[in-house]
Amino acid sequence: MLYGYENAMKTKPGHRDDVAAILTSGADGLRAAGCRLYVVALDTSDDVTIRVTEAWESKEAHDASLRLPETRAAVARAMPLLTGEFTTHETHVVGGLGI
Amino acid sequence: MLYGYENAMKTKPGHRDDVAAILTSGADGLRAAGCRLYVVALDTSDDVTIRVTEAWESKEAHDASLRLPETRAAVARAMPLLTGEFTTHETHVVGGLGI
Repeated sequence: MLYGYENAMKTKPGHRDDVAAILTSGADGLRAAGCRLYVVALDTSDDVTIRVTEAWESKEAHDASLRLPETRAAVARAMPLLTGEFTTHETHVVGGLGI
Repeated sequence: MLYGYENAMKTKPGHRDDVAAILTSGADGLRAAGCRLYVVALDTSDDVTIRVTEAWESKEAHDASLRLPETRAAVARAMPLLTGEFTTHETHVVGGLGI
């Protein structure tokens, strides 16, 4: 069963599109790291919340990806644009459509 | 841009797998209705929460799908197994991997 990770983060005002661009820019590299799904979405209820839904071959693959140089570089670019508020959930992905 | 819908629901104790099976069973029909992604996931922090992440060609396609006979039948089967607690978010899906 795939490991799932859901992460809602808040950006500083005016920077949501910048952060979304950073998050989507690394998508190709994620595949090689064992990522099967990485969905970046903008909450329509405000203009600062980004919701990311991820599915990975394993929790270990997800955790290891955080140590990759390209991931660390993306985090370093995004962090100054974030408020530091994160709401996260770990899941087991059962299935559905497109996964 | 794709319309996104995230829905966390709570099942009655002992029925989470039953509800997950109902939710995933209709996946093939969703594609024809304009659904691009429908991810059913079990929250690891308890044994009653299911998190569904959806992406649709439009909000109209999503809303119309709720009126399909097969959707109504699935909802009728699942509802008695749910507590009625839902946490939902609408989004604009920007992109990423697998979407």
